[in-house]
Amino acid sequence: MAVSLPAPLIGIVGGVGPYAGLDLAAKVFGQTRAQSDQEHLPLALLSLPHTIADRTAYLLGETPENPAFALAEVVRGLEALGATAIGIPCNTAHAPGIFDVLLAELARTGSRARVLHMIRETARLLAETQPGVRQVGVLSTTGTARAGVYPAILRPLGVVALAPADDVQSRVQAAIYDPAYGIKAQSSPVTPRARGELLAAAEHLRAAGAEAIILGCTEVSLALPERTLHGLPAVDPTLALARALIRETYPDRLKPLV
Amino acid sequence: MAVSLPAPLIGIVGGVGPYAGLDLAAKVFGQTRAQSDQEHLPLALLSLPHTIADRTAYLLGETPENPAFALAEVVRGLEALGATAIGIPCNTAHAPGIFDVLLAELARTGSRARVLHMIRETARLLAETQPGVRQVGVLSTTGTARAGVYPAILRPLGVVALAPADDVQSRVQAAIYDPAYGIKAQSSPVTPRARGELLAAAEHLRAAGAEAIILGCTEVSLALPERTLHGLPAVDPTLALARALIRETYPDRLKPLV
Repeated sequence: MAVSLPAPLIGIVGGVGPYAGLDLAAKVFGQTRAQSDQEHLPLALLSLPHTIADRTAYLLGETPENPAFALAEVVRGLEALGATAIGIPCNTAHAPGIFDVLLAELARTGSRARVLHMIRETARLLAETQPGVRQVGVLSTTGTARAGVYPAILRPLGVVALAPADDVQSRVQAAIYDPAYGIKAQSSPVTPRARGELLAAAEHLRAAGAEAIILGCTEVSLALPERTLHGLPAVDPTLALARALIRETYPDRLKPLV
Repeated sequence: MAVSLPAPLIGIVGGVGPYAGLDLAAKVFGQTRAQSDQEHLPLALLSLPHTIADRTAYLLGETPENPAFALAEVVRGLEALGATAIGIPCNTAHAPGIFDVLLAELARTGSRARVLHMIRETARLLAETQPGVRQVGVLSTTGTARAGVYPAILRPLGVVALAPADDVQSRVQAAIYDPAYGIKAQSSPVTPRARGELLAAAEHLRAAGAEAIILGCTEVSLALPERTLHGLPAVDPTLALARALIRETYPDRLKPLV
């Protein structure tokens, strides 16, 4: 393209969901040392939600369309703009059935885009901030839970990932997706019912032995901004991904962890 | 570029300031009829703040670099991505000394990008929502105030734009720019001092006869989210621009004004 862009450029795959893309961008800005507009980092966000099938619906077999291909299209759009490190603020998109297909599709089409792995970055943040934790509860979509996304990454690190019991998981899924009160339908502000269901699920995980709670869906991060839940530390994958994007592009601009 | 993108695509010039870009995107999403990720509109945001000189500093003669040329570069980046209607969430960038130069630079380089005019859209929203108002107070940067951006647009509509007295205007400018407590340095959350200075300036404008208050700087919109100030309706240019971007791309998806 005709435009000269600086390198490096942070890229964000928006639309999964739309507000999660903005939340990730806000967290990149919030984790950057900056006192003026000019000190903030170059960032591009491309939000094409209508092209990307629901990730959980695919993993549960409710739609045959793997969202990996539409995600790859957005990644290539960001790459064409000059993005050198790209984040996808959707935990479910990191299930191997989607993420591995995305990487294969990028390789097939000759893309050299560098896509960070939100779940690995969350495990890294957990290890840095809560090194003693051995059992962690995960609030996620049913797609992320069934695909075992967090257990697969955490188990080798000696951390057990606890999922809610089925009936509680159904309520977490509804808090995210319900067309009347779910976060994807209403997120500014989130409905009290959606927040309440998530808080109840966090308490359920605490009672089951969780020593920390991973907000394992970007909509859950929007609904539960607090740093502790029922006394347990909340671990935010969107924050982990934001910090990783800065670390991989402008490491000297990354604020220290507080 | 190799990526097939849908038309139309909403484009946002980010970085002026960075959080104002996110606020505009959030308002586009908030003004869209949508109950799922897939129902939200395609949007691209390109935030390259380090390339764009401060708009007020240029208008006040503190820097010789007209930010219009860097803004044009970002507009061309969005155009290359396929953006069909573009918004710049910075009131000061719409001063003729910047905006007219931007349009001339786009024409010179063969760009066909369509850039909406935030100030005209604000005047339109004011006329739609507050048709009886004849005197309106404007909280803005000193650059926007000195350039007479709002008076030039509002006068032909029979509306008088009131600016704060010089000493109050200095405090508004500091609430936006101060490196210790200003909104450009600290916006999540905004400091109580910055908010307090802006609220005091709104009261000053009310006492001077204002019947409504225009939040005439995108940082002021971030700091004063309320819909009324000292009993006067607050008019938000970022909201006006968000609605215009939807109207010019997917008019049937625009929520009614409430």
